[in-house]
Amino acid sequence: VLNLYGKNLILAWPDQNTKGIIDSSIEIAVEAKKSYVLASNDWKKQPTVVTVKDVEIGSKKVIVAAGPCAVESEEQVLTTAKAVKRAGASLLRGGAYKPRTSPYSFQGLGEEGVKILKRVGDEVGLPIVTEIMDTRDSAIFTQYVDMIQIGARNAQNFSLLKEVGKLGKPVLLKRGMGNTVEEWLQAAEYILLEGNGNTVLCERGIRTFEKSTRFTLDIGGMVAAKLMTHLPICADPSHPAGKRELVHSLALAAVAAGADMLLVEVHPRPEKALSDSEQQLTPESFEVLMDRIRALARALGRDA
Amino acid sequence: VLNLYGKNLILAWPDQNTKGIIDSSIEIAVEAKKSYVLASNDWKKQPTVVTVKDVEIGSKKVIVAAGPCAVESEEQVLTTAKAVKRAGASLLRGGAYKPRTSPYSFQGLGEEGVKILKRVGDEVGLPIVTEIMDTRDSAIFTQYVDMIQIGARNAQNFSLLKEVGKLGKPVLLKRGMGNTVEEWLQAAEYILLEGNGNTVLCERGIRTFEKSTRFTLDIGGMVAAKLMTHLPICADPSHPAGKRELVHSLALAAVAAGADMLLVEVHPRPEKALSDSEQQLTPESFEVLMDRIRALARALGRDA
Amino acid sequence: VLNLYGKNLILAWPDQNTKGIIDSSIEIAVEAKKSYVLASNDWKKQPTVVTVKDVEIGSKKVIVAAGPCAVESEEQVLTTAKAVKRAGASLLRGGAYKPRTSPYSFQGLGEEGVKILKRVGDEVGLPIVTEIMDTRDSAIFTQYVDMIQIGARNAQNFSLLKEVGKLGKPVLLKRGMGNTVEEWLQAAEYILLEGNGNTVLCERGIRTFEKSTRFTLDIGGMVAAKLMTHLPICADPSHPAGKRELVHSLALAAVAAGADMLLVEVHPRPEKALSDSEQQLTPESFEVLMDRIRALARALGRDA
Amino acid sequence: VLNLYGKNLILAWPDQNTKGIIDSSIEIAVEAKKSYVLASNDWKKQPTVVTVKDVEIGSKKVIVAAGPCAVESEEQVLTTAKAVKRAGASLLRGGAYKPRTSPYSFQGLGEEGVKILKRVGDEVGLPIVTEIMDTRDSAIFTQYVDMIQIGARNAQNFSLLKEVGKLGKPVLLKRGMGNTVEEWLQAAEYILLEGNGNTVLCERGIRTFEKSTRFTLDIGGMVAAKLMTHLPICADPSHPAGKRELVHSLALAAVAAGADMLLVEVHPRPEKALSDSEQQLTPESFEVLMDRIRALARALGRDA
Repeated sequence: VLNLYGKNLILAWPDQNTKGIIDSSIEIAVEAKKSYVLASNDWKKQPTVVTVKDVEIGSKKVIVAAGPCAVESEEQVLTTAKAVKRAGASLLRGGAYKPRTSPYSFQGLGEEGVKILKRVGDEVGLPIVTEIMDTRDSAIFTQYVDMIQIGARNAQNFSLLKEVGKLGKPVLLKRGMGNTVEEWLQAAEYILLEGNGNTVLCERGIRTFEKSTRFTLDIGGMVAAKLMTHLPICADPSHPAGKRELVHSLALAAVAAGADMLLVEVHPRPEKALSDSEQQLTPESFEVLMDRIRALARALGRDA
Repeated sequence: VLNLYGKNLILAWPDQNTKGIIDSSIEIAVEAKKSYVLASNDWKKQPTVVTVKDVEIGSKKVIVAAGPCAVESEEQVLTTAKAVKRAGASLLRGGAYKPRTSPYSFQGLGEEGVKILKRVGDEVGLPIVTEIMDTRDSAIFTQYVDMIQIGARNAQNFSLLKEVGKLGKPVLLKRGMGNTVEEWLQAAEYILLEGNGNTVLCERGIRTFEKSTRFTLDIGGMVAAKLMTHLPICADPSHPAGKRELVHSLALAAVAAGADMLLVEVHPRPEKALSDSEQQLTPESFEVLMDRIRALARALGRDA
Repeated sequence: VLNLYGKNLILAWPDQNTKGIIDSSIEIAVEAKKSYVLASNDWKKQPTVVTVKDVEIGSKKVIVAAGPCAVESEEQVLTTAKAVKRAGASLLRGGAYKPRTSPYSFQGLGEEGVKILKRVGDEVGLPIVTEIMDTRDSAIFTQYVDMIQIGARNAQNFSLLKEVGKLGKPVLLKRGMGNTVEEWLQAAEYILLEGNGNTVLCERGIRTFEKSTRFTLDIGGMVAAKLMTHLPICADPSHPAGKRELVHSLALAAVAAGADMLLVEVHPRPEKALSDSEQQLTPESFEVLMDRIRALARALGRDA
Repeated sequence: VLNLYGKNLILAWPDQNTKGIIDSSIEIAVEAKKSYVLASNDWKKQPTVVTVKDVEIGSKKVIVAAGPCAVESEEQVLTTAKAVKRAGASLLRGGAYKPRTSPYSFQGLGEEGVKILKRVGDEVGLPIVTEIMDTRDSAIFTQYVDMIQIGARNAQNFSLLKEVGKLGKPVLLKRGMGNTVEEWLQAAEYILLEGNGNTVLCERGIRTFEKSTRFTLDIGGMVAAKLMTHLPICADPSHPAGKRELVHSLALAAVAAGADMLLVEVHPRPEKALSDSEQQLTPESFEVLMDRIRALARALGRDA
């Protein structure tokens, strides 16, 4: 028996007789025909709204999380946080534990980075989202973090998915760069199966042969996912762009295609950034982007 | 010496001395540092507007070409043409020579199909765009067709690219499903090098591992191309979608990302279509789409 | 009624009653359950042996076709031809019509190149294989060429496939860099359906995200194809390698996996080659490769 | 200062002056021009031989690790272990902690599975290799496991890479299905940088558009890696094959291309297996494969 979205569920396979096992305490028997039965909208038709403090993801308003790729210093995060809040962002993002392809790249400030992010978030009044990399760090994330991100490189780290499922906090689950939409939903299923339904799916670009962009933002896959699941969908336009000039267009495309949330990298001085220097927006450029997103959202009957 | 966009050009390699070879008749010496020098916006900063009869592609208005995947009968094309014109389409599309993966699939009506499309286009008042597959058919296309399409499967059929370059008519050049953005621009270069600058590039999805869509519409690659070339860019949301439910979202995403033109499959009774039955829109659905495209275009400071 | 492999066939769909339409002249009614019914080994269990003059492809001996990427001069081809014949090659390859990604790259000698190749082939005693790019060139290929190659970029040029099917000469059909194994077999089906069963399938690498090689030689796809078809399979280790150092290993891997034929680029002075300079072997290196192929083939119960 | 392969090293960037910092205890100053400087063969020309108990990987003999996909019971593992040892395998493989795409698939026996594997390995006389999924399990792996596998889905789980680096035991590092060769070497670099040079790289297939195989075994990438690193290379023919019929050919291709080791799934009754039922070989088929591998290895001047 699983409690999810305030309901007592049991999962039954199509060949199981659920009559004997359902009693008055169980509201729904979900027939499992798919490997992502809980994430599927077969049993839960209405879209899920994930709440991070007072921010609702999956509702009418398109939610934007913004902030630096990596937490570098309190001053850097504070400057960015004030700017993105003023421009209309609802969440503050920033990497403290950084999964870097090369061991010689800046590995992040770790626990200290999480604390900086938390202090700034509290000061500015923005809930924070940051990435977890290791099951051994769950206490830190429980204490300080409002929304826990699973990065693309841990998208099939099933131990971490289970652990984050147990923590119960809202999760931002990135799709792995080599994962299909179905595998992405199955990854979410690991979290939901621990009783944690506060999961937002984040498309951030897949690996293809095309090299004019860093990754290929799979807008089609994102739309296909929306048709398959009740969970809200986020898009990260910064990582697939790889360069600043492409970020606006990808962000607008994602909103036009129905994204409920965006995750955008903003840095006060991108050229000095310790990571992803090429793709972070300046606060000024982010402000322009927010104006365009709002205009677009309204044209589509949404808000931002 | 090449005449392109009303100018006499010479192409010179960086190590060539162009002083001796330029005389008063030559207006521009283009330094060829790239394999797509003519398609590049290095030498021609202002965007090219391609004119098909009175339709301008690459200007403020987002142009929509619509019509059936395949020309099946005069009645079918006429019904569709009237409907898409009423909804706001500016060009009539339809396949007469059909490149089908299987030899057992409907191969199209060929020359008769081109003539049907022309008659309907004239009657309804829409210029027509249709695909050429064989260099031996160039006379038919010269006589009847307003805009010649090179399909994805012939995107690197260099004999056909050269032939179409020589014909001088506007060209809609699809990107091959296995081609990089750079190869796409190089394919355009084959056409431009024959003196034909009326080329529109069309993104229609690339081959990736993802199977929830038929192809992966490469919005990022499309945006990257816009930054590299002066040629207008079109997007085909129908083929990458593969299924009807995804077409609207992909079309809107492409417009939000800056597409100058859309190519949309519409069929009066999609479930009876002889090809691509799953992805063609009904006229009613197309009308809704056009309304949404107009709202979106206006929000972006464009028109549709 | 189709005559293929000396048999009169009719193709029937599973829901057709073939009883009435079969008479004594028709030997086999092939039930078409697949879009590559003639290429499939469902109806023809024993492997097809394609004969080019006196060379048998698909028999016990692993056949090697070798020669320069492009025909540059009679002297260049003659030097190469003598060397590869001495080392054990059975066919002479060389491009006359060259499908080049960039219009500014060497486009080949065309008809003159075909004639050079033919003269050298006759002098040295090797049948020749070279690529056709345009349906309008079929007379030249009929007159001079022993085996006609369809290149990767024309792998779904269906007009050309049909035309080559009609010519009746042995065909070497490359897989497109963005094509699935199934599409490759369907391309062959276009040729077989014209009554031309002398088709060899050639795997030459597909487009993937990996960039340490030029293309990804799909050994698994090649083996999968062997299980699906009765046609012989060739592998081209030169194009996927992209650099000389990898060619031997890929060639040996292909033979170990069951390739019936190899297509290897050899140039007397690779560093001076007008195309694919990085991946062509020297005659000396080719000789070493042939020794290794022979040792390997024998260990597998074959010959080379 | 890092101790690796019995040498004291320092890593210096090209712009650093190493003169002052080298003293008599430091034997080599490695100039770091690449993000995988320690894994690169720029500084260590001779191939590394990784020793697992008395088994040498990277030497003349091609090493085969074989066993079931998942440890299901002691009896199952024992039957398999005896059979693969008799056929010539040098290592026993088997999954205890299983990274399954779906949470509803068999998740493995965990710690109990590791212990079974160890008991059987000791009884039969084969060192064991099995996969770690969680940094919190390192004590179990230190105590029982001879060679620790990092699976494809944790190929960029940098916390786990660092942890395994610290354990010092031989590591079998799989390439992620969406990772480039360069990223694979960078993942190895994380392990080497902890002072653990006993790392074998394992190619197991990448994600591509081709669907006739489960993954695309990247033989070319494997060969490219061999030219870039001093570490031994393993190939896993079972996972890319996805079906039994393809495993032999892929295994032979990998050996022909230069693999130092193979990882092959063998199950006494594959049709009853709790995972990967389609691709596991029977002991009889494995015996035939070993004979073929030996013949091939000898033809290439190696041994098996």
